[in-house]
Amino acid sequence: MTVELISVGTELLLGNIVNTNAQYLAEECALLGLTMYNQTVVGDNPRRLSDAVRTALDRSDIIILTGGLGPTEDDLTKEICAEVMGCPLAEDSHTRDRISDYFKNSGVKEIPGNNWKQAMVPEGALVLDNDNGTAPGLILVKGGKRAILLPGPPDELIPLFVGQVRPYLQKLRPEVIVSQMVKICGVGESRVEEELLDLIDRQANPTIATYAKTGEVHVRITASASTEETAMKLIKPVVKEIKRRMGMAVYTTKAEETLEMSVVRLLKKFELTLATAESCTGGLAAGRIVNVAGASDVFHQGFVTYSNKAKRKLLDVSKSTLKKYGAVSKETAREMAVGGAFAADSDLCVAITGIAGPDGGTEEKPVGLVYIACCLGDKVTVERYQFKGNRAKVREQSVVRALDLVRRTVLESQK
Amino acid sequence: MTVELISVGTELLLGNIVNTNAQYLAEECALLGLTMYNQTVVGDNPRRLSDAVRTALDRSDIIILTGGLGPTEDDLTKEICAEVMGCPLAEDSHTRDRISDYFKNSGVKEIPGNNWKQAMVPEGALVLDNDNGTAPGLILVKGGKRAILLPGPPDELIPLFVGQVRPYLQKLRPEVIVSQMVKICGVGESRVEEELLDLIDRQANPTIATYAKTGEVHVRITASASTEETAMKLIKPVVKEIKRRMGMAVYTTKAEETLEMSVVRLLKKFELTLATAESCTGGLAAGRIVNVAGASDVFHQGFVTYSNKAKRKLLDVSKSTLKKYGAVSKETAREMAVGGAFAADSDLCVAITGIAGPDGGTEEKPVGLVYIACCLGDKVTVERYQFKGNRAKVREQSVVRALDLVRRTVLESQK
Repeated sequence: MTVELISVGTELLLGNIVNTNAQYLAEECALLGLTMYNQTVVGDNPRRLSDAVRTALDRSDIIILTGGLGPTEDDLTKEICAEVMGCPLAEDSHTRDRISDYFKNSGVKEIPGNNWKQAMVPEGALVLDNDNGTAPGLILVKGGKRAILLPGPPDELIPLFVGQVRPYLQKLRPEVIVSQMVKICGVGESRVEEELLDLIDRQANPTIATYAKTGEVHVRITASASTEETAMKLIKPVVKEIKRRMGMAVYTTKAEETLEMSVVRLLKKFELTLATAESCTGGLAAGRIVNVAGASDVFHQGFVTYSNKAKRKLLDVSKSTLKKYGAVSKETAREMAVGGAFAADSDLCVAITGIAGPDGGTEEKPVGLVYIACCLGDKVTVERYQFKGNRAKVREQSVVRALDLVRRTVLESQK
Repeated sequence: MTVELISVGTELLLGNIVNTNAQYLAEECALLGLTMYNQTVVGDNPRRLSDAVRTALDRSDIIILTGGLGPTEDDLTKEICAEVMGCPLAEDSHTRDRISDYFKNSGVKEIPGNNWKQAMVPEGALVLDNDNGTAPGLILVKGGKRAILLPGPPDELIPLFVGQVRPYLQKLRPEVIVSQMVKICGVGESRVEEELLDLIDRQANPTIATYAKTGEVHVRITASASTEETAMKLIKPVVKEIKRRMGMAVYTTKAEETLEMSVVRLLKKFELTLATAESCTGGLAAGRIVNVAGASDVFHQGFVTYSNKAKRKLLDVSKSTLKKYGAVSKETAREMAVGGAFAADSDLCVAITGIAGPDGGTEEKPVGLVYIACCLGDKVTVERYQFKGNRAKVREQSVVRALDLVRRTVLESQK
């Protein structure tokens, strides 16, 4: 079964926004085992939009349109699709009631007249209730072809897709598609591919795909079978084998768990607290940790010590260490971690000091040189990295490696 | 003149990557005064790719293709375009030499055989030297139509576009297009549009466009004229008028200056130092400041005080304040700012405390409630915000408002 995307909106043609919806829907469709050959972006223009819809219906079984379902005169997606597919519009009383309720709940007394346009629905269309806006999603079926219309704002589109479109598409296929993620940190994509080469080479069902992220590699294992249970049975041994080969580098097998979530989960599990002492990353590592809801159980404070004076005062890094080895050195990183744990009265402290650039590099200590230290009890581990990329990239990679060092330190301590 | 984009790559159809190139090129083309009606994504498939090229050449004056210029068998963009436009391929010795040099400079001794494919150039094509990779950009002209081929990696595409494609496209137009940005913080998009309504309504040359960013609004003024000087003369009075109306809310008129850059610039100018004291944002404000190269002149340290104990210990927030008003209160925010400035021995300190959610909200203090305080000398300003959105969104908005409060505090103090 083939699917294609039509994103409707002048703001995409003007480059005002990035088309993240296309990426989201493409990934979801691939996971559902649907084949995508084309994506199109077109503006709110009747002729060009209807050309795009006709072409897409000609060559694909399913078309997904996003955007252009708003209440204004410019919004034409529904009208054009109804016309091309020959389904006249009629008011849907259920949708009318929902729009009315939506405004009532938002505390709006007078409903703008043009919003009633959104209660008009093509004849025979399946209406997908939208809990986060006034435009419902719609599914039109005609002559074996399907058009799925979704509102453009991601916070409306994603819940609609997850709750209603995905189950609808799943039912269209005789097979169930199930996938699982294995997330790996601290090992490059080429190393991962090398380690898994024979598995990747002989893949059929399940399939194995690797995705490179900053400092991470995600491996997705996808199986299709007649039932979810059978698919899971196909996936399980592959996941187990990948975990065996990659060992401690695997930080989670849950798609929704981020690296910082897995760090917080581990700290909670072993009842440990963490502090941060950051120089070149300037608070970004703490920021990632605090991004986890409930991080307050394990993270109480962090230090951003950008100057040498701050390193001395807040973290008790010795003057002679700074003088002898410099702020970017394994010795300073070590003292930052030890001093940070003491000052914060925490079990662990991770420290980051480096040269993020663009200036400040020397032959001996080039831009991208970063030392990361982590202490737990008497044990301190210091790692040296030479990162590539611009200032933001160097800092981002430093944060990922720092989080991973915390994770590994905790795991090692519990062996 | 019309332009359209064809992005080539299976990774886009599978949703592995977001098509940021399309956004970049769309924005650049709009700035050049070119009209874009269509964007297409297609995989590395000869038939579908040649269909896409034919359709695009039919309906647009200029087509820009990205991706598919690599050395592998899968990379077909150049071959297909040459075929459709009837320009046979021949080896270009200049490009061959450049590829050879590129590998030599990268320390690679043996050049992979398939890389020589990248030295093949369509007859009559303009070759755009690529300093960041082995695939040159290409411009093919035939029958009044132009195809511009660029490599997919953004760090190759952007320099090629800026250095060679943009000047090429500019020359095609009789007029010069110049634009200037006015960046505004702390005022919503609808308020900005209201304030500028008459200017927007009677726009012709220059045109005025507003873009909503998190906590910011960017206004772009674009003029076309026979010379850059004349265009600037058209822009200047409009920029001046917008600055007059929006007053202190305008933080810069430089397109490349971010809010944190303008904060660091102001602090440097008035020789002031800043510290941060963050609760719910957990280091993100410090992280934004440190993102500015050279921030070390004005920012020496920051505190991430997530727990009450840390607020007391590091920032000297009094026990009774925390007990009486709670951690999320204007009183605590005030004491955090004052205590932070004292502890860091800095001129200013900005403090952020709030409920980022998803848990922790109450009827009285709902999720999204954030207090931001800034002290400078004896003066402390505390602001109360009720932000909407998820945890990440609340934190992001808090950081923007905190940076803006620093900016306004510095400006007020110099009045």
